[in-house]
Amino acid sequence: NEKDGLIHGVSAAELQSLCTTSLEARGKAYCPYSLFRVGASLLLHTPDASGQTTITGANVENASYPVGTCAERVAMGTAIHQGHKLGSFKAIGVVTDMDDYCSPCGMCRQFLREFLALETPIFMFNKGGKFIVRTMGELLPLSFGPDVLPPKE
Amino acid sequence: NEKDGLIHGVSAAELQSLCTTSLEARGKAYCPYSLFRVGASLLLHTPDASGQTTITGANVENASYPVGTCAERVAMGTAIHQGHKLGSFKAIGVVTDMDDYCSPCGMCRQFLREFLALETPIFMFNKGGKFIVRTMGELLPLSFGPDVLPPKE
Amino acid sequence: NEKDGLIHGVSAAELQSLCTTSLEARGKAYCPYSLFRVGASLLLHTPDASGQTTITGANVENASYPVGTCAERVAMGTAIHQGHKLGSFKAIGVVTDMDDYCSPCGMCRQFLREFLALETPIFMFNKGGKFIVRTMGELLPLSFGPDVLPPKE
Amino acid sequence: NEKDGLIHGVSAAELQSLCTTSLEARGKAYCPYSLFRVGASLLLHTPDASGQTTITGANVENASYPVGTCAERVAMGTAIHQGHKLGSFKAIGVVTDMDDYCSPCGMCRQFLREFLALETPIFMFNKGGKFIVRTMGELLPLSFGPDVLPPKE
Ligand SMILES: [Zn+2]
Ligand SMILES: [Zn+2]
Ligand SMILES: [Zn+2]
Ligand SMILES: [Zn+2]
Repeated sequence: NEKDGLIHGVSAAELQSLCTTSLEARGKAYCPYSLFRVGASLLLHTPDASGQTTITGANVENASYPVGTCAERVAMGTAIHQGHKLGSFKAIGVVTDMDDYCSPCGMCRQFLREFLALETPIFMFNKGGKFIVRTMGELLPLSFGPDVLPPKE
Repeated sequence: NEKDGLIHGVSAAELQSLCTTSLEARGKAYCPYSLFRVGASLLLHTPDASGQTTITGANVENASYPVGTCAERVAMGTAIHQGHKLGSFKAIGVVTDMDDYCSPCGMCRQFLREFLALETPIFMFNKGGKFIVRTMGELLPLSFGPDVLPPKE
Repeated sequence: NEKDGLIHGVSAAELQSLCTTSLEARGKAYCPYSLFRVGASLLLHTPDASGQTTITGANVENASYPVGTCAERVAMGTAIHQGHKLGSFKAIGVVTDMDDYCSPCGMCRQFLREFLALETPIFMFNKGGKFIVRTMGELLPLSFGPDVLPPKE
Repeated sequence: NEKDGLIHGVSAAELQSLCTTSLEARGKAYCPYSLFRVGASLLLHTPDASGQTTITGANVENASYPVGTCAERVAMGTAIHQGHKLGSFKAIGVVTDMDDYCSPCGMCRQFLREFLALETPIFMFNKGGKFIVRTMGELLPLSFGPDVLPPKE
């Protein structure tokens, strides 16, 4: 996984950027019900028109708990709406307020699976900036994506 | 509802902007399963730092249908993450590819309810740009929001 | 709405049954995150094979809040799986632990809309057994159901 | 995994029962939008009051795709509402109409995680009754459950 100083293809500078932007994103969480802030950041293969290389999100909760959404899905929803797609993403980072590393929930893994390659790394940062990393395929083994239910387009 | 040329406080120019940006947003939909494109646009009371007055979204579907999300929630998720909140929004517009007017689904009405005042207008455009309008409170009567389940913050 | 002692077609005995079974259902809630118990009960037009006239549900929460589900959807999911369908339901009742009447969230209104006629009454009981009632169509005006996105079957 | 003729603690007769009841459940699917029928069956450690050893579910879709629910969640919602809980379940089976084995979506994996032990087997049957099996922990590695967000009860 590590060669030429890269971790799953991500450089030290990119990793730092993922961590910093995830932490910034966490500050935008709307979570009056769980008080559990989460920030997420998607790293693009190619800077977009405005020179941006990351797209971020935070959790947005609702008085009806099942109606709320997670940081990872806000980030990816924004990204897809901006025109990015399967193949656009180099990595994703996630951070909470915990000492421990927190992984994306199963629903987010499924949402991400539609747009991330199975080998795309998911960096899980603790509040101190340390991380563990797993690939999309490792976090959602035997998964199904756009290839199973044949898209009609 | 109409006085001084305003519809629920929205001017003709703002309404035109809502319609145009919703239509543009619709073009970004990822909907290989339903083939049902939806675009949404939130109108801000005050332009943000970059001078922007609308924030848009489109539906993002998933091979596991329940995991996908709607245009209205993508737009609002992006907006909240950008720092907007209850009190920031003057109106929302929604458009599909149908001749008929299409309203937000119940899940989106609940998601919007957390951040829109009950008197905020929801403009539903048909594909030709004609519209009907209802307020948040009219589309989700007897609703509950942040006031019912006491936030812990 | 009231004639011949019926409320939206529901007799006093049926209403009592709806209230009692909703209260019992509430006791089965799994809600360690919100501590907000909800019970729901569907009243069938015709008793099923086992002589049962109501089908109940309670909320089932999840550590990832958006993944949990509500009482109304548990009840209706069970009912559909048992073979009931659009046309099977005479009414639904919902109860929480609050003094105030609590309505179904928007997501549940949309889920119910697929199987309840627009004139079907939704009885919202407070913890003391008093109620307010609205029809499906009143709680989700301008809604869309199976008729809009043409089913493929 | 196999000793004494057991697969993850499940006997041949129990496995047959899981397969049969999953297949029956599949027949109750309401899926006019995807036409993708799924059945699920939970195997209890101990028969319940009525002598029942399995609890089943099927997918229940909605005109607003994200509002629908999956077979696994219908089965587990019904089970929890009947009084079962973490520790009650010996296995779960899932079947579709495909030749290939289909796994639970990420959202269902997260929903199940709240009530299944990490070593609980998930049997994925193809339409011919053949299967592959993985444990809960294998299908949702690094997952979080009731232990992470401290329950308040
Ligand atoms: Zn999540
Ligand atoms: Zn919606
Ligand atoms: Zn609900
Ligand atoms: Zn599922």
